[in-house]
Amino acid sequence: MTELVLTTYDWVPEPPRGYVRDLRVRWALEEAHLAYRIESTPFEDRGAGHLAHQPFGQVPWLTDGDLSIFESGAILLHLGEKSEALAPTDPRGRAEVVEWVMAALNSVEAASQPWSLFRFMGFPGDAPQAGFVDGFLKARLDRMEAVLAGRAWLVGAGFSVADIAMADVLRPVDRFDGLADYPACGAYLARATARPAFQKAHADQLAHFAAGDRARA
Amino acid sequence: MTELVLTTYDWVPEPPRGYVRDLRVRWALEEAHLAYRIESTPFEDRGAGHLAHQPFGQVPWLTDGDLSIFESGAILLHLGEKSEALAPTDPRGRAEVVEWVMAALNSVEAASQPWSLFRFMGFPGDAPQAGFVDGFLKARLDRMEAVLAGRAWLVGAGFSVADIAMADVLRPVDRFDGLADYPACGAYLARATARPAFQKAHADQLAHFAAGDRARA
Repeated sequence: MTELVLTTYDWVPEPPRGYVRDLRVRWALEEAHLAYRIESTPFEDRGAGHLAHQPFGQVPWLTDGDLSIFESGAILLHLGEKSEALAPTDPRGRAEVVEWVMAALNSVEAASQPWSLFRFMGFPGDAPQAGFVDGFLKARLDRMEAVLAGRAWLVGAGFSVADIAMADVLRPVDRFDGLADYPACGAYLARATARPAFQKAHADQLAHFAAGDRARA
Repeated sequence: MTELVLTTYDWVPEPPRGYVRDLRVRWALEEAHLAYRIESTPFEDRGAGHLAHQPFGQVPWLTDGDLSIFESGAILLHLGEKSEALAPTDPRGRAEVVEWVMAALNSVEAASQPWSLFRFMGFPGDAPQAGFVDGFLKARLDRMEAVLAGRAWLVGAGFSVADIAMADVLRPVDRFDGLADYPACGAYLARATARPAFQKAHADQLAHFAAGDRARA
Protein backbone atom coordinates (compact mmCIF):
# COMPACT_ATOMS: atom_id res chain seq x y z
CA MET A 1 0.00 0.00 0.00
CA THR A 2 1.34 3.42 -0.97
CA GLU A 3 1.54 6.21 1.59
CA LEU A 4 -1.56 8.34 2.00
CA VAL A 5 -0.93 12.04 2.66
CA LEU A 6 -3.79 14.41 3.43
CA THR A 7 -3.09 18.12 2.97
CA THR A 8 -5.09 20.84 4.72
CA TYR A 9 -4.46 24.47 5.67
CA ASP A 10 -1.81 25.25 8.28
CA TRP A 11 -4.32 27.48 10.06
CA VAL A 12 -7.86 28.82 9.64
CA PRO A 13 -9.78 31.46 11.62
CA GLU A 14 -11.90 30.25 14.53
CA PRO A 15 -15.39 30.05 12.92
CA PRO A 16 -14.76 27.29 10.33
CA ARG A 17 -12.74 25.10 12.71
CA GLY A 18 -14.35 21.70 13.00
CA TYR A 19 -15.98 22.23 9.58
CA VAL A 20 -13.01 22.32 7.19
CA ARG A 21 -13.46 19.55 4.65
CA ASP A 22 -10.32 17.63 5.52
CA LEU A 23 -12.58 16.39 8.33
CA ARG A 24 -14.46 14.15 5.90
CA VAL A 25 -11.24 12.54 4.75
CA ARG A 26 -9.82 12.16 8.26
CA TRP A 27 -13.10 10.53 9.27
CA ALA A 28 -12.95 8.00 6.42
CA LEU A 29 -9.29 7.21 7.08
CA GLU A 30 -10.05 6.62 10.76
CA GLU A 31 -13.08 4.42 9.99
CA ALA A 32 -10.94 2.22 7.76
CA HIS A 33 -7.86 2.27 10.04
CA LEU A 34 -5.76 3.36 7.07
CA ALA A 35 -2.34 4.81 7.89
CA TYR A 36 -1.93 8.44 6.80
CA ARG A 37 0.09 11.55 7.35
CA ILE A 38 -1.13 15.17 7.51
CA GLU A 39 0.65 17.95 5.65
CA SER A 40 -0.12 21.66 5.72
CA THR A 41 -0.40 24.31 3.03
CA PRO A 42 -0.46 28.03 3.91
CA PHE A 43 -3.94 29.46 4.41
CA GLU A 44 -2.73 32.99 3.81
CA ASP A 45 -0.67 32.37 0.69
CA ARG A 46 -2.20 30.00 -1.86
CA GLY A 47 0.42 29.81 -4.57
CA ALA A 48 1.00 27.83 -7.72
CA GLY A 49 2.01 24.73 -5.77
CA HIS A 50 -1.35 24.73 -4.02
CA LEU A 51 -3.30 25.36 -7.23
CA ALA A 52 -1.50 22.49 -8.95
CA HIS A 53 -3.10 20.14 -6.43
CA GLN A 54 -6.39 21.97 -5.86
CA PRO A 55 -7.36 24.30 -8.71
CA PHE A 56 -9.85 26.29 -6.59
CA GLY A 57 -7.22 27.10 -3.95
CA GLN A 58 -9.14 25.12 -1.34
CA VAL A 59 -8.46 22.05 0.77
CA PRO A 60 -8.20 19.14 1.14
CA TRP A 61 -6.29 17.09 -1.32
CA LEU A 62 -5.01 13.55 -0.89
CA THR A 63 -1.94 12.00 -2.42
CA ASP A 64 -1.85 8.23 -2.83
CA GLY A 65 1.51 7.36 -4.31
CA ASP A 66 1.73 9.36 -7.54
CA LEU A 67 -2.01 10.14 -7.59
CA SER A 68 -3.13 13.51 -6.23
CA ILE A 69 -6.90 13.86 -5.80
CA PHE A 70 -8.96 16.94 -4.90
CA GLU A 71 -12.66 17.35 -4.04
CA SER A 72 -13.65 15.68 -0.79
CA GLY A 73 -16.31 13.64 -2.59
CA ALA A 74 -13.78 12.23 -5.06
CA ILE A 75 -11.39 11.41 -2.21
CA LEU A 76 -14.18 9.62 -0.32
CA LEU A 77 -14.99 7.50 -3.38
CA HIS A 78 -11.29 6.74 -3.86
CA LEU A 79 -10.93 5.61 -0.25
CA GLY A 80 -14.17 3.65 -0.58
CA GLU A 81 -12.38 1.38 -3.02
CA LYS A 82 -9.71 0.61 -0.43
CA SER A 83 -11.79 -0.72 2.44
CA GLU A 84 -15.07 -2.55 2.98
CA ALA A 85 -15.43 -0.42 6.11
CA LEU A 86 -16.12 2.47 3.73
CA ALA A 87 -18.11 0.96 0.86
CA PRO A 88 -19.48 -2.40 -0.25
CA THR A 89 -17.82 -4.06 -3.23
CA ASP A 90 -20.81 -5.50 -5.12
CA PRO A 91 -22.15 -3.50 -8.11
CA ARG A 92 -25.42 -2.50 -6.43
CA GLY A 93 -23.70 -1.40 -3.24
CA ARG A 94 -21.07 0.57 -5.15
CA ALA A 95 -23.76 2.32 -7.21
CA GLU A 96 -25.69 3.19 -4.05
CA VAL A 97 -22.60 4.69 -2.45
CA VAL A 98 -21.87 6.85 -5.49
CA GLU A 99 -25.47 8.06 -5.82
CA TRP A 100 -25.75 8.97 -2.14
CA VAL A 101 -22.37 10.74 -2.07
CA MET A 102 -23.63 12.72 -5.07
CA ALA A 103 -27.00 13.34 -3.41
CA ALA A 104 -25.21 14.73 -0.35
CA LEU A 105 -22.85 16.97 -2.28
CA ASN A 106 -25.24 18.14 -4.98
CA SER A 107 -28.94 17.73 -4.18
CA VAL A 108 -28.59 18.49 -0.45
CA GLU A 109 -25.50 20.69 -0.22
CA ALA A 110 -26.60 22.92 -3.12
CA ALA A 111 -29.56 23.82 -0.89
CA SER A 112 -27.91 23.68 2.52
CA GLN A 113 -24.76 25.63 1.70
CA PRO A 114 -26.43 28.95 0.73
CA TRP A 115 -28.81 28.51 3.68
CA SER A 116 -26.03 28.09 6.24
CA LEU A 117 -23.75 30.69 4.63
CA PHE A 118 -26.56 33.28 4.71
CA ARG A 119 -27.04 32.58 8.42
CA PHE A 120 -23.32 32.60 9.03
CA MET A 121 -23.15 36.05 7.40
CA GLY A 122 -26.12 37.29 9.44
CA PHE A 123 -28.08 38.37 6.35
CA PRO A 124 -31.62 39.67 6.90
CA GLY A 125 -34.36 37.05 6.62
CA ASP A 126 -36.81 39.29 4.80
CA ALA A 127 -35.06 39.43 1.43
CA PRO A 128 -36.83 37.28 -1.18
CA GLN A 129 -33.55 35.36 -1.60
CA ALA A 130 -33.73 34.26 2.04
CA GLY A 131 -37.25 32.88 1.63
CA PHE A 132 -36.28 31.08 -1.56
CA VAL A 133 -33.26 29.45 0.07
CA ASP A 134 -35.37 28.44 3.10
CA GLY A 135 -37.88 26.75 0.79
CA PHE A 136 -35.15 25.04 -1.23
CA LEU A 137 -33.60 23.53 1.90
CA LYS A 138 -37.01 22.53 3.27
CA ALA A 139 -37.82 20.62 0.08
CA ARG A 140 -34.61 18.61 0.45
CA LEU A 141 -34.89 18.00 4.20
CA ASP A 142 -38.52 16.92 3.90
CA ARG A 143 -37.36 14.15 1.61
CA MET A 144 -34.25 13.27 3.64
CA GLU A 145 -36.49 12.97 6.71
CA ALA A 146 -38.61 10.37 4.91
CA VAL A 147 -35.51 8.46 3.79
CA LEU A 148 -33.81 8.49 7.19
CA ALA A 149 -36.98 7.57 9.09
CA GLY A 150 -36.67 4.15 7.49
CA ARG A 151 -32.99 3.27 7.78
CA ALA A 152 -29.96 3.69 10.02
CA TRP A 153 -27.52 4.38 7.18
CA LEU A 154 -28.01 5.47 3.57
CA VAL A 155 -26.74 2.35 1.83
CA GLY A 156 -28.31 -1.00 2.56
CA ALA A 157 -25.04 -2.71 3.44
CA GLY A 158 -24.35 -0.36 6.39
CA PHE A 159 -22.24 2.68 7.24
CA SER A 160 -20.28 4.00 4.25
CA VAL A 161 -18.56 7.09 2.89
CA ALA A 162 -22.04 8.19 1.75
CA ASP A 163 -22.88 8.72 5.44
CA ILE A 164 -19.68 10.68 5.97
CA ALA A 165 -20.65 12.99 3.13
CA MET A 166 -24.31 13.34 4.14
CA ALA A 167 -23.66 13.78 7.86
CA ASP A 168 -20.99 16.39 7.24
CA VAL A 169 -23.35 18.26 4.88
CA LEU A 170 -26.03 18.26 7.60
CA ARG A 171 -23.65 19.53 10.31
CA PRO A 172 -23.67 23.22 9.24
CA VAL A 173 -27.49 23.06 9.04
CA ASP A 174 -27.62 21.69 12.57
CA ARG A 175 -25.14 24.37 13.70
CA PHE A 176 -27.81 26.98 12.90
CA ASP A 177 -30.60 24.83 14.34
CA GLY A 178 -32.03 23.89 10.94
CA LEU A 179 -32.78 20.27 11.86
CA ALA A 180 -35.17 21.09 14.74
CA ASP A 181 -38.20 20.00 12.70
CA TYR A 182 -36.45 16.91 11.33
CA PRO A 183 -36.05 14.35 14.11
CA ALA A 184 -34.90 11.51 11.86
CA CYS A 185 -32.24 13.74 10.30
CA GLY A 186 -31.18 14.88 13.77
CA ALA A 187 -30.97 11.32 15.09
CA TYR A 188 -28.99 10.24 12.02
CA LEU A 189 -26.52 13.07 12.50
CA ALA A 190 -26.15 12.26 16.21
CA ARG A 191 -25.61 8.56 15.35
CA ALA A 192 -22.96 9.42 12.77
CA THR A 193 -21.05 11.94 14.87
CA ALA A 194 -21.04 9.62 17.92
CA ARG A 195 -18.79 7.23 16.02
CA PRO A 196 -15.26 7.10 17.45
CA ALA A 197 -13.77 7.78 14.01
CA PHE A 198 -15.68 11.07 13.74
CA GLN A 199 -14.73 12.04 17.29
CA LYS A 200 -11.06 11.44 16.61
CA ALA A 201 -11.14 13.21 13.22
CA HIS A 202 -12.87 16.23 14.76
CA ALA A 203 -10.48 16.44 17.71
CA ASP A 204 -7.51 16.03 15.38
CA GLN A 205 -8.68 18.88 13.14
CA LEU A 206 -9.15 21.21 16.12
CA ALA A 207 -5.70 20.26 17.47
CA HIS A 208 -4.13 20.82 14.05
CA PHE A 209 -5.45 24.38 13.80
CA ALA A 210 -4.60 25.07 17.46
CA ALA A 211 -1.02 24.12 16.59
CA GLY A 212 -1.28 26.62 13.75
CA ASP A 213 -2.21 29.29 16.31
CA ARG A 214 0.93 28.51 18.31
CA ALA A 215 3.13 28.59 15.19
CA ARG A 216 1.79 32.08 14.38
CA ALA A 217 2.12 33.39 17.94
CA MET B 1 -25.20 -5.68 -22.39
CA THR B 2 -28.35 -5.08 -20.37
CA GLU B 3 -30.95 -2.60 -21.57
CA LEU B 4 -30.45 1.01 -20.50
CA VAL B 5 -33.65 2.92 -19.70
CA LEU B 6 -33.54 6.64 -18.90
CA THR B 7 -36.58 8.07 -17.13
CA THR B 8 -37.51 11.75 -17.22
CA TYR B 9 -40.70 13.74 -16.72
CA ASP B 10 -43.53 13.35 -19.24
CA TRP B 11 -43.77 17.15 -19.45
CA VAL B 12 -42.27 20.27 -17.89
CA PRO B 13 -43.23 23.95 -18.25
CA GLU B 14 -41.47 25.95 -20.95
CA PRO B 15 -38.67 27.68 -18.93
CA PRO B 16 -36.64 24.61 -17.84
CA ARG B 17 -36.88 22.87 -21.23
CA GLY B 18 -33.42 22.21 -22.58
CA TYR B 19 -32.05 22.29 -19.02
CA VAL B 20 -33.68 19.25 -17.38
CA ARG B 21 -30.92 16.98 -16.14
CA ASP B 22 -31.83 13.98 -18.27
CA LEU B 23 -29.93 16.03 -20.87
CA ARG B 24 -26.61 15.11 -19.25
CA VAL B 25 -27.41 11.43 -19.46
CA ARG B 26 -28.75 11.62 -23.03
CA TRP B 27 -25.56 13.45 -23.99
CA ALA B 28 -23.33 10.74 -22.48
CA LEU B 29 -25.36 7.94 -24.08
CA GLU B 30 -25.10 9.64 -27.48
CA GLU B 31 -21.34 10.25 -27.12
CA ALA B 32 -20.81 6.54 -26.41
CA HIS B 33 -23.33 5.30 -28.99
CA LEU B 34 -24.98 3.22 -26.28
CA ALA B 35 -28.49 1.94 -27.05
CA TYR B 36 -31.15 3.28 -24.70
CA ARG B 37 -34.84 3.84 -24.30
CA ILE B 38 -36.64 6.83 -22.75
CA GLU B 39 -39.49 6.38 -20.29
CA SER B 40 -41.65 9.06 -18.70
CA THR B 41 -42.85 9.69 -15.17
CA PRO B 42 -45.64 12.20 -14.44
CA PHE B 43 -44.39 15.72 -13.68
CA GLU B 44 -47.64 16.62 -11.93
CA ASP B 45 -48.01 13.52 -9.76
CA ARG B 46 -44.82 12.24 -8.14
CA GLY B 47 -45.94 9.16 -6.28
CA ALA B 48 -44.31 6.32 -4.36
CA GLY B 49 -43.15 4.63 -7.56
CA HIS B 50 -41.21 7.75 -8.50
CA LEU B 51 -39.75 8.20 -5.01
CA ALA B 52 -38.60 4.58 -4.97
CA HIS B 53 -36.29 5.39 -7.88
CA GLN B 54 -35.49 9.03 -7.04
CA PRO B 55 -35.96 9.90 -3.35
CA PHE B 56 -36.09 13.66 -4.00
CA GLY B 57 -38.93 13.32 -6.52
CA GLN B 58 -36.72 14.61 -9.30
CA VAL B 59 -35.37 13.26 -12.58
CA PRO B 60 -33.53 11.55 -14.14
CA TRP B 61 -32.90 8.01 -13.11
CA LEU B 62 -31.31 5.26 -15.17
CA THR B 63 -31.98 1.56 -14.98
CA ASP B 64 -29.28 -0.81 -16.16
CA GLY B 65 -30.65 -4.31 -15.81
CA ASP B 66 -31.63 -4.63 -12.15
CA LEU B 67 -29.64 -1.54 -11.09
CA SER B 68 -31.56 1.74 -10.74
CA ILE B 69 -29.35 4.81 -10.30
CA PHE B 70 -30.32 8.40 -9.47
CA GLU B 71 -28.27 11.62 -9.39
CA SER B 72 -27.02 12.69 -12.79
CA GLY B 73 -23.43 12.69 -11.51
CA ALA B 74 -23.68 9.09 -10.34
CA ILE B 75 -25.22 8.07 -13.67
CA LEU B 76 -22.42 9.82 -15.57
CA LEU B 77 -19.78 7.94 -13.54
CA HIS B 78 -21.65 4.66 -14.10
CA LEU B 79 -21.76 5.23 -17.87
CA GLY B 80 -18.12 6.30 -17.76
CA GLU B 81 -17.24 2.74 -16.82
CA LYS B 82 -18.98 1.43 -19.95
CA SER B 83 -17.15 3.33 -22.69
CA GLU B 84 -13.73 4.85 -23.30
CA ALA B 85 -15.58 7.59 -25.18
CA LEU B 86 -16.74 8.77 -21.74
CA ALA B 87 -13.78 8.17 -19.42
CA PRO B 88 -10.25 6.78 -19.53
CA THR B 89 -9.64 3.43 -17.83
CA ASP B 90 -6.25 3.99 -16.17
CA PRO B 91 -6.21 4.88 -12.43
CA ARG B 92 -5.03 8.45 -12.92
CA GLY B 93 -7.55 9.16 -15.66
CA ARG B 94 -10.40 7.62 -13.64
CA ALA B 95 -9.48 9.70 -10.58
CA GLU B 96 -9.35 12.86 -12.70
CA VAL B 97 -12.81 12.15 -14.10
CA VAL B 98 -14.30 11.63 -10.63
CA GLU B 99 -12.68 14.76 -9.18
CA TRP B 100 -13.81 16.97 -12.06
CA VAL B 101 -17.36 15.60 -12.03
CA MET B 102 -17.40 16.40 -8.30
CA ALA B 103 -15.86 19.83 -8.93
CA ALA B 104 -18.62 20.60 -11.44
CA LEU B 105 -21.47 19.41 -9.24
CA ASN B 106 -20.19 20.68 -5.89
CA SER B 107 -17.55 23.42 -6.10
CA VAL B 108 -19.00 25.12 -9.19
CA GLU B 109 -22.73 24.26 -9.09
CA ALA B 110 -23.04 25.14 -5.38
CA ALA B 111 -22.10 28.66 -6.47
CA SER B 112 -23.74 28.79 -9.88
CA GLN B 113 -27.12 27.31 -8.94
CA PRO B 114 -28.18 30.00 -6.43
CA TRP B 115 -26.82 32.65 -8.81
CA SER B 116 -28.85 31.45 -11.77
CA LEU B 117 -31.95 30.65 -9.69
CA PHE B 118 -31.93 34.17 -8.21
CA ARG B 119 -31.79 35.61 -11.73
CA PHE B 120 -34.44 33.20 -12.95
CA MET B 121 -36.72 34.38 -10.14
CA GLY B 122 -35.99 38.03 -10.91
CA PHE B 123 -34.87 38.80 -7.36
CA PRO B 124 -33.52 42.30 -6.65
CA GLY B 125 -29.75 42.66 -6.96
CA ASP B 126 -29.35 44.96 -3.97
CA ALA B 127 -30.02 42.39 -1.21
CA PRO B 128 -26.79 41.40 0.58
CA GLN B 129 -27.54 37.81 -0.42
CA ALA B 130 -27.29 38.79 -4.09
CA GLY B 131 -23.87 40.35 -3.63
CA PHE B 132 -22.65 37.34 -1.69
CA VAL B 133 -23.80 34.90 -4.37
CA ASP B 134 -22.22 37.07 -7.09
CA GLY B 135 -18.91 36.95 -5.23
CA PHE B 136 -19.14 33.21 -4.63
CA LEU B 137 -19.67 32.51 -8.34
CA LYS B 138 -16.92 34.95 -9.34
CA ALA B 139 -14.42 33.14 -7.09
CA ARG B 140 -15.21 29.85 -8.83
CA LEU B 141 -15.28 31.21 -12.40
CA ASP B 142 -12.00 33.09 -11.89
CA ARG B 143 -10.38 29.73 -11.16
CA MET B 144 -12.22 27.85 -13.93
CA GLU B 145 -11.07 30.52 -16.37
CA ALA B 146 -7.44 29.82 -15.42
CA VAL B 147 -7.97 26.07 -15.77
CA LEU B 148 -9.76 26.25 -19.12
CA ALA B 149 -7.32 28.77 -20.59
CA GLY B 150 -4.78 25.94 -20.62
CA ARG B 151 -6.69 22.94 -21.92
CA ALA B 152 -9.45 21.92 -24.32
CA TRP B 153 -11.07 19.40 -21.93
CA LEU B 154 -10.83 18.92 -18.18
CA VAL B 155 -9.15 15.51 -18.12
CA GLY B 156 -5.83 15.01 -19.83
CA ALA B 157 -6.97 12.07 -21.93
CA GLY B 158 -9.66 14.11 -23.74
CA PHE B 159 -13.41 14.69 -23.66
CA SER B 160 -15.12 12.83 -20.81
CA VAL B 161 -18.24 12.80 -18.66
CA ALA B 162 -16.49 15.46 -16.55
CA ASP B 163 -16.97 17.85 -19.47
CA ILE B 164 -20.63 16.90 -19.77
CA ALA B 165 -21.10 17.75 -16.09
CA MET B 166 -19.08 20.99 -16.18
CA ALA B 167 -20.50 22.28 -19.46
CA ASP B 168 -24.05 21.60 -18.34
CA VAL B 169 -23.37 23.38 -15.04
CA LEU B 170 -22.06 26.41 -16.97
CA ARG B 171 -25.09 26.53 -19.32
CA PRO B 172 -27.51 28.21 -16.85
CA VAL B 173 -24.79 30.76 -16.05
CA ASP B 174 -24.37 31.51 -19.73
CA ARG B 175 -28.17 31.72 -20.13
CA PHE B 176 -28.10 34.80 -17.86
CA ASP B 177 -24.94 36.17 -19.51
CA GLY B 178 -22.68 35.27 -16.58
CA LEU B 179 -19.74 34.12 -18.73
CA ALA B 180 -19.27 37.45 -20.53
CA ASP B 181 -16.06 38.18 -18.59
CA TYR B 182 -14.77 34.61 -18.92
CA PRO B 183 -13.71 34.01 -22.53
CA ALA B 184 -12.04 30.64 -21.87
CA CYS B 185 -15.15 29.37 -20.07
CA GLY B 186 -17.32 30.66 -22.90
CA ALA B 187 -15.14 29.04 -25.57
CA TYR B 188 -15.14 25.76 -23.62
CA LEU B 189 -18.93 25.79 -23.38
CA ALA B 190 -19.27 26.57 -27.08
CA ARG B 191 -16.85 23.73 -27.92
CA ALA B 192 -18.77 21.28 -25.74
CA THR B 193 -22.24 22.20 -26.97
CA ALA B 194 -21.14 22.12 -30.62
CA ARG B 195 -20.61 18.36 -30.31
CA PRO B 196 -23.16 16.35 -32.30
CA ALA B 197 -24.02 14.28 -29.22
CA PHE B 198 -25.04 17.41 -27.29
CA GLN B 199 -27.02 18.73 -30.24
CA LYS B 200 -28.95 15.48 -30.56
CA ALA B 201 -29.54 15.18 -26.80
CA HIS B 202 -30.81 18.75 -26.63
CA ALA B 203 -33.12 18.36 -29.63
CA ASP B 204 -34.41 15.06 -28.27
CA GLN B 205 -35.25 16.61 -24.89
CA LEU B 206 -37.13 19.48 -26.53
CA ALA B 207 -39.03 17.03 -28.77
CA HIS B 208 -39.87 14.83 -25.76
CA PHE B 209 -41.48 17.70 -23.84
CA ALA B 210 -43.22 18.98 -26.99
CA ALA B 211 -44.81 15.52 -27.28
CA GLY B 212 -45.90 16.00 -23.67
CA ASP B 213 -47.65 19.22 -24.71
CA ARG B 214 -49.57 17.35 -27.40
CA ALA B 215 -50.55 14.55 -24.98
CA ARG B 216 -51.99 17.16 -22.60
CA ALA B 217 -53.81 19.14 -25.31
